[in-house]
Amino acid sequence: MSSKIMETFDNERARLNEIVMRYAGQEIKRFYSLDHQAYRDGALPGKIKELMGFVASLALRCDDCIKYHVGECHRSGVSDAEFEEAAAIGLVVGSSIAIPHLRRAYEAWDELKRQ
Amino acid sequence: MSSKIMETFDNERARLNEIVMRYAGQEIKRFYSLDHQAYRDGALPGKIKELMGFVASLALRCDDCIKYHVGECHRSGVSDAEFEEAAAIGLVVGSSIAIPHLRRAYEAWDELKRQ
Amino acid sequence: MSSKIMETFDNERARLNEIVMRYAGQEIKRFYSLDHQAYRDGALPGKIKELMGFVASLALRCDDCIKYHVGECHRSGVSDAEFEEAAAIGLVVGSSIAIPHLRRAYEAWDELKRQ
Amino acid sequence: MSSKIMETFDNERARLNEIVMRYAGQEIKRFYSLDHQAYRDGALPGKIKELMGFVASLALRCDDCIKYHVGECHRSGVSDAEFEEAAAIGLVVGSSIAIPHLRRAYEAWDELKRQ
Amino acid sequence: MSSKIMETFDNERARLNEIVMRYAGQEIKRFYSLDHQAYRDGALPGKIKELMGFVASLALRCDDCIKYHVGECHRSGVSDAEFEEAAAIGLVVGSSIAIPHLRRAYEAWDELKRQ
Amino acid sequence: MSSKIMETFDNERARLNEIVMRYAGQEIKRFYSLDHQAYRDGALPGKIKELMGFVASLALRCDDCIKYHVGECHRSGVSDAEFEEAAAIGLVVGSSIAIPHLRRAYEAWDELKRQ
Repeated sequence: MSSKIMETFDNERARLNEIVMRYAGQEIKRFYSLDHQAYRDGALPGKIKELMGFVASLALRCDDCIKYHVGECHRSGVSDAEFEEAAAIGLVVGSSIAIPHLRRAYEAWDELKRQ
Repeated sequence: MSSKIMETFDNERARLNEIVMRYAGQEIKRFYSLDHQAYRDGALPGKIKELMGFVASLALRCDDCIKYHVGECHRSGVSDAEFEEAAAIGLVVGSSIAIPHLRRAYEAWDELKRQ
Repeated sequence: MSSKIMETFDNERARLNEIVMRYAGQEIKRFYSLDHQAYRDGALPGKIKELMGFVASLALRCDDCIKYHVGECHRSGVSDAEFEEAAAIGLVVGSSIAIPHLRRAYEAWDELKRQ
Repeated sequence: MSSKIMETFDNERARLNEIVMRYAGQEIKRFYSLDHQAYRDGALPGKIKELMGFVASLALRCDDCIKYHVGECHRSGVSDAEFEEAAAIGLVVGSSIAIPHLRRAYEAWDELKRQ
Repeated sequence: MSSKIMETFDNERARLNEIVMRYAGQEIKRFYSLDHQAYRDGALPGKIKELMGFVASLALRCDDCIKYHVGECHRSGVSDAEFEEAAAIGLVVGSSIAIPHLRRAYEAWDELKRQ
Repeated sequence: MSSKIMETFDNERARLNEIVMRYAGQEIKRFYSLDHQAYRDGALPGKIKELMGFVASLALRCDDCIKYHVGECHRSGVSDAEFEEAAAIGLVVGSSIAIPHLRRAYEAWDELKRQ
């Protein structure tokens, strides 16, 4: 019923963030908070911002970032067609070296859609 | 009345694309066409796609791409607030090394707004 | 007798591409096709193009792309010396952060040579 | 008597930051402030942090960031030998594509030293 | 008593470097040697250079490089506070896409500190 | 009769390298020498290596590196068709953000062909 890829990712992410926070000073904590704030609803809806985060993460080839934004896109009610069009932009900007990340993005997306 | 930054950019881009096309084979021509298609209206409106192109270009620090998408965002009726929120995502994903590009993005945006 | 690294990679790649293609629209399909066409025999032989793909993948640090081009280089009859000289260029352009990828490139190459 | 490269850079940077700040929301302002705080004296002296900023900027090939940190390194009393050793690390991590940026870094450094 | 993350990394690194060296020509060997020399004590102490290597590796998002420099930082007697301040610079330069790598950096650091 | 783009580039490059060499220690000098050696005739002809350098420079978006390799490709007798096929690979690996660099690559190539 649940996505194993996303669950494994979320647990690992939480476990490691707990270690980071044990050592983190003010700058690292502020960066974490800033990163969170940038995706809140505003003039642009949070859903569009998550899609933007997905496009940028795909273009910059960050698997963990992709997984995170794929999860948030799904939670925000992004449709298959919206996700695909964002993926196409990420691919055109990110190029053939983004393809392996596109594959893993769709593996996670597909699992979330099948829940 | 017109933006000098954008005009200079558009002219230079046209001049150089003309040279590229004199030499380009099928793959380069297809890539150009694909790059164009990815930003058309679809499940996501063209305006949102241009903002996505701007975010990715800022995060990947491509001044010419930024200028192009700033121009398209302006033409599509993107508001100051929408542009700023997209810029904030591009900055958080692109980091301090994106700041010089953010500066030039806003120089072009500001000029377009003053027309 | 067969390379386990390449077999695992090929199977996973096929499995995930099948998922991508279930969702892919025209742009993603065209990008896949374009990516394939760029490496065909032409004025430059396919073998040289695969070596170019390897150099660029090493310089851009994409493990999956490296594995793919290592496989294609091997299939095209690239020699140890040719592969090593291309690797040296990829390393000089890609720098010390390309070394971990160089290691994995040679792990796959070595396995293919031992078949 | 003064460095023309640095003066031109500082003036342009101030002019464009003024435009950014006219449009900037909370996230962009916070990012600017965070970027500033990260280089303050702490367990590591500010001078070492500026050298770290220079290494990272060289490795990531950001000319404006390089110029900024070259200026701060000079102001903090970094010696020729310290600067050169940091540059060597930036070059080994950043590779041959960092060489053009190394050239411009040394052009600015040389001008500052001749004041 | 020992760090499992670092031990696994060191063993794998040695195993793969042995394969690389079986094929490596003069350029690859020289690059390896250059990469080693850049971090030796000089005008800047080796400890500071390892921290610089860590900052650059975090900003460039190379997990293997991060692990290597985390190990060397620990061996050189870098303190928690020094490591954290370097990490903050790496994060501000490397951005939100560096966060997953920061997490893994701290996982290794934490394990080394608990030995 | 001569290419102005290449002449300007060569002069500026020589002027700045002279400054670098005034400060450079052993590591920087060795890196320069290594960078040179990697493109010499070997199992692969120098001409193919220059094309590889061009592909990697385009994919990594380094204008100065592109100009340098465009010049060397021209000197080595690379044909229009060979150059175009290499450019297509650089574009497919480097993506839409490589297009501005492709434009400037062809501007230099075109000027060299018209001499």
